[in-house]
Amino acid sequence: MPETPSDFLGVLSARLGEKHVIADPAGMESYLVEERKLYRGNALAVVRPGNTEEVAFVVQECAKAKVAAVPQGGNTGLVGGGVPHTGIVLSLARLDRIREVNPFNATMIVEAGCILKTIQDAAEKVDCIFPLSLASEGSCRIGGNISTNAGGVNVLRYGNTRELVLGLEVVLADGRIWNGLKSLRKDNTGYDLKNLFIGSEGTLGIVTAAVLKLFPRPKTRVVAFIGCASPHAALDLFEGLRQTLGDALTAFEFMPRFALDIVLRHAPGAVRPLSGDHAAYALIEVASPDPEIDLRALLEKALGSAFENGTIEDATIAASEAQNAALWYLRESLSDVQGLEGGSIKHDVSVPVSDVADFIVTASRACEEALPGIRVCAFGHFGDGNIHFNLTQPIDMEKPLFLAQWGRFNRIVHDIVHAMNGSISAEHGIGLIKRDELARYKDPVALDLMKTLKRALDPQNILNPGKVVALEGDLPPALPMGKKG
Amino acid sequence: MPETPSDFLGVLSARLGEKHVIADPAGMESYLVEERKLYRGNALAVVRPGNTEEVAFVVQECAKAKVAAVPQGGNTGLVGGGVPHTGIVLSLARLDRIREVNPFNATMIVEAGCILKTIQDAAEKVDCIFPLSLASEGSCRIGGNISTNAGGVNVLRYGNTRELVLGLEVVLADGRIWNGLKSLRKDNTGYDLKNLFIGSEGTLGIVTAAVLKLFPRPKTRVVAFIGCASPHAALDLFEGLRQTLGDALTAFEFMPRFALDIVLRHAPGAVRPLSGDHAAYALIEVASPDPEIDLRALLEKALGSAFENGTIEDATIAASEAQNAALWYLRESLSDVQGLEGGSIKHDVSVPVSDVADFIVTASRACEEALPGIRVCAFGHFGDGNIHFNLTQPIDMEKPLFLAQWGRFNRIVHDIVHAMNGSISAEHGIGLIKRDELARYKDPVALDLMKTLKRALDPQNILNPGKVVALEGDLPPALPMGKKG
Repeated sequence: MPETPSDFLGVLSARLGEKHVIADPAGMESYLVEERKLYRGNALAVVRPGNTEEVAFVVQECAKAKVAAVPQGGNTGLVGGGVPHTGIVLSLARLDRIREVNPFNATMIVEAGCILKTIQDAAEKVDCIFPLSLASEGSCRIGGNISTNAGGVNVLRYGNTRELVLGLEVVLADGRIWNGLKSLRKDNTGYDLKNLFIGSEGTLGIVTAAVLKLFPRPKTRVVAFIGCASPHAALDLFEGLRQTLGDALTAFEFMPRFALDIVLRHAPGAVRPLSGDHAAYALIEVASPDPEIDLRALLEKALGSAFENGTIEDATIAASEAQNAALWYLRESLSDVQGLEGGSIKHDVSVPVSDVADFIVTASRACEEALPGIRVCAFGHFGDGNIHFNLTQPIDMEKPLFLAQWGRFNRIVHDIVHAMNGSISAEHGIGLIKRDELARYKDPVALDLMKTLKRALDPQNILNPGKVVALEGDLPPALPMGKKG
Repeated sequence: MPETPSDFLGVLSARLGEKHVIADPAGMESYLVEERKLYRGNALAVVRPGNTEEVAFVVQECAKAKVAAVPQGGNTGLVGGGVPHTGIVLSLARLDRIREVNPFNATMIVEAGCILKTIQDAAEKVDCIFPLSLASEGSCRIGGNISTNAGGVNVLRYGNTRELVLGLEVVLADGRIWNGLKSLRKDNTGYDLKNLFIGSEGTLGIVTAAVLKLFPRPKTRVVAFIGCASPHAALDLFEGLRQTLGDALTAFEFMPRFALDIVLRHAPGAVRPLSGDHAAYALIEVASPDPEIDLRALLEKALGSAFENGTIEDATIAASEAQNAALWYLRESLSDVQGLEGGSIKHDVSVPVSDVADFIVTASRACEEALPGIRVCAFGHFGDGNIHFNLTQPIDMEKPLFLAQWGRFNRIVHDIVHAMNGSISAEHGIGLIKRDELARYKDPVALDLMKTLKRALDPQNILNPGKVVALEGDLPPALPMGKKG
């Protein structure tokens, strides 16, 4: 890139106000470092526009000066997608207005900088829900959720973020604003621009606002925790429940014994859900908008027959909302406690749901053979075929030595996923950390189409350059510190 | 376009076999005329490849010779999108294999030429459903459904075609094949190519196969027919039912009194559902995968309270599957009987669901003022905000005189839709018939983005040229015969 014009930041300051163009290292720090400290970035400045027109102005100036703009929401991403390596950080945090809540149309118009939790709360105030729910919901911002097509624990019932968005407002690479804030259930007027921007990680345009779908608030829910003899038995359980419960089944999460063991060991207040030990656990939730439906009876019947035919070994059904929460706590604590067992090599993969048990068994065996003593922590959104296939270090190994094998285990796991026609990034996206893995596994025609789209929509390559796909001139990905083998 | 090389068809015949390259007028006839006889097209030949590789070969030859390829499925489209005006018709009808049915993954892999009804039947054989359902399901082909993002009567519960497709195989404008036949619920590996092709009406690529989502087969359903005092009362009913029934509510269709009157007058065997007359009727369906749930009791309760608070005037709940079908017959006959009342000017529009009653009232009044005696037949997918706002001629008017006002009424209706931030094509697409309407109403930035995408993916403009968006050199749309004012 050419030299940045000397008055570039001055022009931005004049429009946005000086305090919204941050160039001092201390002020920039939290925007440059990725949450898990995997990456440290560089930027000319952090720029914080206050509305869509100011975002457009900033991007116009970037386009004129050929300066990169790296959009950032809550900076909670897990793939280095929001970390800048050149140009400015364009923070959407000040675009935090909820523009409209319309329970009658079951929609809500929000700005990109709204925190997910704020949106969930606003929906509940009108007796609806916005069902996107994930670990970082207290600090992630909806623009980031949209740009990464975030998943979470309610995908089984409500779909990914993509399915929850009806319309978008986007600032394009030349600074024009596309107003696609439609609140329609059906609209076949031309190409699907909305889905092109959703999940493109800020490389094709910058999402500034969105129309979100709301749903009737479930009036009753029941959670159960179930012990099975194997992942295959858990899959049989899932198939059976899906047939009888349909959409009442809102979550089907999986944990192996190792995962429950470390939660019980480390998570404060975690209570053992079943008396014995089992090789595989499922946490399921059923919910209904009808407050009078007896979900517990429904579930007792379904689990009773699963017990009789040998699909499950044991189960507990929560008898109160407090017990519902206590069971969810076992699953939700898992992300926090893994680190307490040492180094962890992580994968966020998916396969067809019918293959998810085969995948867990095959990949676990391959990793255990590759490094005896390795502890497989394969958990997650089983009902979506999405497994966080995490590998915890052997007990007696040095953490850096283990983490040095990151690349080797990526290869083992991703090769198996690829052979099963799966995905090497089910819900976290590509960003920088998986960019070269993507180039390895993605259909070459698809990869070429992606580059064609990037060049067509961002011909100067100024929007989050080097993320998702690498074009000529992009930097090689900075290695995550101490992680790549 | 330059002269077509003299051996162009010969090269195609040599690969596909002579009988699959049809150039005689009689053999081509059914491919050139649109179902409702609104358009007659022209083509060098009708080419019928037998598999994906042959489709790719044909498109490669078209690219070399700069000959347009107009993909066609069942030729049942309603906007002239499959009618050729240059080049060849590329019929997908021979790609009619169901490649895989996987009830455990709840997916099915089908080729573009499969007839929708065949797919529905194959799903039912494994105790699942493929929920896409529309009037032409016995002859439309899934490739066309995908290319137009077809809607139909089950969108309220299951979404548009877009929501029912997990993966695609597409032949690109240069003849390369993109294999995106993934059967995954979650896949965040780069840009959403799938949704770019879905709904692009064959102008960006030619869909040759798809992975479809299946759903548990509802084991029980109940249909009710309800009389209300107004569209606003029907909307109140919808909002109430959605809150209490949630996803058990699988359809909410609307008919005004005029629509029911003409069905009862013309449809053989149609039986009056309610003793009195009402200004607005709703047909609703509730369904469940649980065979033991008492849907009738659920519905009686919900409708009972709607009756008590004055939302509805009368209702009948079907007591058998035969009665379910008889009530649906009233709604489904409507398309056929409209023509028996004379000329009809049609619109396929949507507005936010919360505005659908306002829209019906406002647009009806505007049309009645513009032409006293006009009979508004505004019916359809009320729960999606999608109304087929059709206008039947005054009883004593000459049909051609009425149809000559097509353009005038388009303007009246579409202006109202546009002012309500609605869509001028909710489910039928743009094709040729709405191309210039789209250019009038679409956000100019969106229209420009569409052209950018078209140029990037089809730089020679050989895929269904002149449809959806007009580029330089495209022909003006042929006027639908006798329809435009």
